Amino acid sequence: MAVEISGDRRNENSIDYLTNCDGAMEMEEERMKARKGKEEGKDEERRENDVLQRRQFSLMAAVFQLIFIGILWVFGRYIDPLDDNRRVYASTDYPLFQDVHLMIFVGFGFLMAFLKRYGFSAVSVNLLLSSFVVQYSMVLRGFLSKKFHDTGFFTIGIPEMISADSSCAVVLITMGVLLGRVTPSQFILLAFFETSMSVLVEHIVFNILHVNDGGRSLVVHAFGAYFGLAASIVGQKRNVMEMDEEGRYHHSDLFSMIGTLLLWVFFPSFNAAIQEPEDARHRAIMNTYLAMASSTVTTFLVSSLVDRLGRFNMIHIQSSTLAGGVAIGSSANAVLYPAHALLVGVLAGLISVLGHAFLSPILERHFKLYDTCGVHNLHGIPGVVSGILSILFALVYDSQSYGKTLYHIYPYYKDGPMQGNRDNHSQALYQLAGMAIVLTTAIVGGLLTGLILRAKTLNQVDDPVPHGETNYYAQSEFNFLSKYQHAQEQEMQERQRLQQVY
Amino acid sequence: MAVEISGDRRNENSIDYLTNCDGAMEMEEERMKARKGKEEGKDEERRENDVLQRRQFSLMAAVFQLIFIGILWVFGRYIDPLDDNRRVYASTDYPLFQDVHLMIFVGFGFLMAFLKRYGFSAVSVNLLLSSFVVQYSMVLRGFLSKKFHDTGFFTIGIPEMISADSSCAVVLITMGVLLGRVTPSQFILLAFFETSMSVLVEHIVFNILHVNDGGRSLVVHAFGAYFGLAASIVGQKRNVMEMDEEGRYHHSDLFSMIGTLLLWVFFPSFNAAIQEPEDARHRAIMNTYLAMASSTVTTFLVSSLVDRLGRFNMIHIQSSTLAGGVAIGSSANAVLYPAHALLVGVLAGLISVLGHAFLSPILERHFKLYDTCGVHNLHGIPGVVSGILSILFALVYDSQSYGKTLYHIYPYYKDGPMQGNRDNHSQALYQLAGMAIVLTTAIVGGLLTGLILRAKTLNQVDDPVPHGETNYYAQSEFNFLSKYQHAQEQEMQERQRLQQVY
Amino acid sequence: MAVEISGDRRNENSIDYLTNCDGAMEMEEERMKARKGKEEGKDEERRENDVLQRRQFSLMAAVFQLIFIGILWVFGRYIDPLDDNRRVYASTDYPLFQDVHLMIFVGFGFLMAFLKRYGFSAVSVNLLLSSFVVQYSMVLRGFLSKKFHDTGFFTIGIPEMISADSSCAVVLITMGVLLGRVTPSQFILLAFFETSMSVLVEHIVFNILHVNDGGRSLVVHAFGAYFGLAASIVGQKRNVMEMDEEGRYHHSDLFSMIGTLLLWVFFPSFNAAIQEPEDARHRAIMNTYLAMASSTVTTFLVSSLVDRLGRFNMIHIQSSTLAGGVAIGSSANAVLYPAHALLVGVLAGLISVLGHAFLSPILERHFKLYDTCGVHNLHGIPGVVSGILSILFALVYDSQSYGKTLYHIYPYYKDGPMQGNRDNHSQALYQLAGMAIVLTTAIVGGLLTGLILRAKTLNQVDDPVPHGETNYYAQSEFNFLSKYQHAQEQEMQERQRLQQVY
Repeated sequence: MAVEISGDRRNENSIDYLTNCDGAMEMEEERMKARKGKEEGKDEERRENDVLQRRQFSLMAAVFQLIFIGILWVFGRYIDPLDDNRRVYASTDYPLFQDVHLMIFVGFGFLMAFLKRYGFSAVSVNLLLSSFVVQYSMVLRGFLSKKFHDTGFFTIGIPEMISADSSCAVVLITMGVLLGRVTPSQFILLAFFETSMSVLVEHIVFNILHVNDGGRSLVVHAFGAYFGLAASIVGQKRNVMEMDEEGRYHHSDLFSMIGTLLLWVFFPSFNAAIQEPEDARHRAIMNTYLAMASSTVTTFLVSSLVDRLGRFNMIHIQSSTLAGGVAIGSSANAVLYPAHALLVGVLAGLISVLGHAFLSPILERHFKLYDTCGVHNLHGIPGVVSGILSILFALVYDSQSYGKTLYHIYPYYKDGPMQGNRDNHSQALYQLAGMAIVLTTAIVGGLLTGLILRAKTLNQVDDPVPHGETNYYAQSEFNFLSKYQHAQEQEMQERQRLQQVY
Repeated sequence: MAVEISGDRRNENSIDYLTNCDGAMEMEEERMKARKGKEEGKDEERRENDVLQRRQFSLMAAVFQLIFIGILWVFGRYIDPLDDNRRVYASTDYPLFQDVHLMIFVGFGFLMAFLKRYGFSAVSVNLLLSSFVVQYSMVLRGFLSKKFHDTGFFTIGIPEMISADSSCAVVLITMGVLLGRVTPSQFILLAFFETSMSVLVEHIVFNILHVNDGGRSLVVHAFGAYFGLAASIVGQKRNVMEMDEEGRYHHSDLFSMIGTLLLWVFFPSFNAAIQEPEDARHRAIMNTYLAMASSTVTTFLVSSLVDRLGRFNMIHIQSSTLAGGVAIGSSANAVLYPAHALLVGVLAGLISVLGHAFLSPILERHFKLYDTCGVHNLHGIPGVVSGILSILFALVYDSQSYGKTLYHIYPYYKDGPMQGNRDNHSQALYQLAGMAIVLTTAIVGGLLTGLILRAKTLNQVDDPVPHGETNYYAQSEFNFLSKYQHAQEQEMQERQRLQQVY
Repeated sequence: MAVEISGDRRNENSIDYLTNCDGAMEMEEERMKARKGKEEGKDEERRENDVLQRRQFSLMAAVFQLIFIGILWVFGRYIDPLDDNRRVYASTDYPLFQDVHLMIFVGFGFLMAFLKRYGFSAVSVNLLLSSFVVQYSMVLRGFLSKKFHDTGFFTIGIPEMISADSSCAVVLITMGVLLGRVTPSQFILLAFFETSMSVLVEHIVFNILHVNDGGRSLVVHAFGAYFGLAASIVGQKRNVMEMDEEGRYHHSDLFSMIGTLLLWVFFPSFNAAIQEPEDARHRAIMNTYLAMASSTVTTFLVSSLVDRLGRFNMIHIQSSTLAGGVAIGSSANAVLYPAHALLVGVLAGLISVLGHAFLSPILERHFKLYDTCGVHNLHGIPGVVSGILSILFALVYDSQSYGKTLYHIYPYYKDGPMQGNRDNHSQALYQLAGMAIVLTTAIVGGLLTGLILRAKTLNQVDDPVPHGETNYYAQSEFNFLSKYQHAQEQEMQERQRLQQVY
């Protein structure tokens, strides 16, 4: 039995390694024998604990999946696009949805694929969590919808799919902070708590405070980042980066660039996806496009400046080039002049690279704030900047410039269909209030969730199990195996059995 | 001359290898010398056989390409989109076409790129076969079209491009079964036979039986999978997986995930591409989206359950996560409730993972049914499930629920414009008949094609040529070479020539 | 201080290498010590020169970025899509824009990622240059616009974004010729000069000569290729391919295929993006689709034919498969029959592969014309072919066949709204004149720019600095570093300092 454990240790990466290094195979067998002695007699004790540990992910996922089906069975219906007075989706919303869909499922996944031992993990846990959040957030938003309040059931259509996908982004940003330090079952629980809170906060910010957060920079980027950072502090796990010091492939950076570039290319769609009418959507696209261009040029120039020898830093290029899209987000539909969008991009690139270069090392060293993918500098700070800019733009632009679109962007302005009484100053205060609520909830929610995730009954990444053996079935690096491993594992077990017989 | 062969053996992968291993170069030269003796005098005999073997692909491709040009010259015209009474393509069809196009040419290619020695092969043969099938299926469908029957020429437009791309999927699914065991010229012949049969079957199922197979799960997924499996049985080639036991890179899995994720993201467009009107297309999108989400969660949970230690299996994640899209396919336009779509996804994920874990090893061991990419569990079984579900949904849903759209989905229902006389039960029988025809034709067609591909005159992958030398110009691993190999080859030849002179 | 240099040499790739080879670390330290002696006392002299060299990129980028902001502040406005009488963008232009955007930022980047040491460089410099050119070309086109002439300010919208993206393609094609031999600051200058010329030439060709170059094959593909080749001749740098002889990973080819396939899939959108009305756009899509299919089949068949053993060449597949899209470009909106599009594709594939196989080696050996990515055979020759075909199609097609669309394609034909007086023959002459102007400007402009880039004050790739040390801060391979390198560098420096103390 002890033999099996050894087989298990030889995960996908170590196979790669074995084919290069002759001695490794023998060493592995040596270690195996040494361990065999120690572990006999402890097997029984461990096995009981094992079942809960090994099967908790499956159990959790099954329960949630059944609940989602049950709720949708009772309360969920499709919209009828022929009767619906919303705009026809095919010519306007569906192409934008597909861009966002690509960002969430491919872009975010590959963005996080730069760590050698977590590359496959990043891409596939990304897929798992998104598939979970899509269903859960649809259910939650359904219950909060006016339709549900009026009729007792809720409807879903393309706009609901866009919202569901953007809820995934919240969780994926948090995943970027914690990657490599959280197990799949912890991630599922985290996604449950975070989505609950983020959908509620979004409801308050959008439908009660009527804050303009067009590209969702506050409710998605800032919320996800600070939630994750707060959870990370409480989690107190050792930084995965240290364990990985030599562990980066050349190609992992290219894979990561696939993620960066897909996010880069489709960011205008993300910021414009829920905008209307036409001119607001158009501005959201153009502003994001320009902010990202200037943010990228600024990232390269500042990255070179902060290096002693003028070199570029891959981390900056993989992340800060996107900061412009985050920083323009909240007011992407509101910014009226191209030059302003360019300035926002420059500001975002500058702050993001400086964050990577100077702030992150300080936070890591002095506050033990580990941030696996540098999320703070890509989503956190630029998200806050976006919130501040949304206050600023509400203050300085003449509300007459928006024409009829004004009441789409700021629905409670004076003389609008909602009979609101806001002006520039009161709207600015509402924007401030929105930002405060988002940040507070994110930090408090993150801390609480972090505490919950420490529960001993949950799979933990690198805590040793009682008998001093590393907790192999929980470690991320052992979470994935390939067909070949199965074959090799079986072969090795059979070889061992033969050795015992003769 | 014999010297050249040795140069040829050093394909792209072996170069990678050589740079790591010092002794390899010398061994290569040793082997070269040993072989030199044996092979002298046999060169003449071989050379004649060689020309047919080496040039047969080019010849075949040239003949087909010229025929396509000739037929389109005489019979093919473009539609006039200004006069055409079909919906305008730009606002509805073209974005969906581009999603499908991306799935076929990038998604399928990378999905199959997980084998070390066949990664490049997968991606580029995918491109070749698709380019071939696009032209051939357009010609075939043209001849079967009403327009051709009426006017003597056929027209092509965006909808014809969508159909052509979906015909590629049939062949690419079959390619997934046979990858690594079939040479390019065999693949071209296979594509020719398979496309002929699949377009004909599709014509019968859609235009004569009026079966609802909205997302083409029967005529594309099930047909392609069982055609390939039948051809594989007859082909009787040794499984490429065995040869590759240590041959998988870490990154190949990430490349494969590019394929998985692109297919995942765009599956709603695939299932919705040929739907009309608006509400049927909308349902196809939403149902697919939900089925894939629940199928993915189920894949992870079952994959963990079937592993002794609760780990995830990469193969499952790369393939079973897509099973939901296949299983909902045939009735994607017909399913009326979100909860039903979720249930279909759960069923698909469950069956697909169980297939990978328990059925495939049995088929492989006891029936010698090799399936390189696990196509049976991704396209085969879920395709059949989709057919069965399309019978079920035709039976249980009240046909009044579809409103005016009923006659788009089931055109021969009572009181429709086609003056049909079908009801739920008779339509269910037609659905069953359609599935039977698809499966029978696929299996018989695959067996016949497999037999044809065994012809000695065709390039074969790993049969030794008469003089005991492996058939280097036919083996997949020697089919691709890089610029550097050219340079190295030439250098080595010159070095050899110098050695012979002095 | 001298110690630092050694740390710098250990770039990302060498880390990969070090982890495999035991002795490398020691060798590195040996070399370090040897160098230490030589370099003492020269530090002062070097440091002065250094600042200009190290900071010139940042300075240049900052100046340009500030100028762009200034100009857009004073002169740039957004269009108002509600008042604009141009077609609504969301249902027509934006999805096409997104396809083009993906080609430019992801497709071109990965297409050039096949060189081991320049993979990351290719992808990220691609992003940098595009972000630069997007802004600069918008400004330039703004100043050339009728709107600016009439009102003193220019407007930007989705169509301007499409044009800006296509200006990036010009520079990225040139980058393909020069990759690995030009530093970032040289690239920024090159982008400045090339964009200036290409936008001006485009203005002459489109708005003064009224030449039909629908898919921009002349003003983008041919211009970019010959500009780069001319600059390459003057640059006289040693070919990076030689330095890289063993330097290609297996996976780099797969990364490169990501680029190829994205360009392949979206080429119809590129050629159709600026077409109107509906039928011209439809023809542009269909013609490109068919030309690419036949070009791909032809590429495989000719690639196999030119190899002694009938194998395929990766370089051909990565590049010539796209030649059909380039060759149909100029007349993509004008070709009226599907068979003609297929023929154009066959011609393009044939010429492109023959160029790779026979022309490039000659140009390289006898004319020292180095072309890193084989741009001449993908964009150069097919671009010229496209120009010639646009003359041919203007001559042979009956202008009546175009109906009302005639004056969109050839605005100065007789009896049109522009009151022109052209017929088939005079239009053909204009097409010829357009091609001549494009090629002349490209070659002269490239030669001049190549000369400017030789300026000693600019960062140069592999010139030794005065004291015989390679110019480490300018070499492309040292331009990028990762977080781990930072850590390793610092650690090594500290170790060295300790050694000096004790």
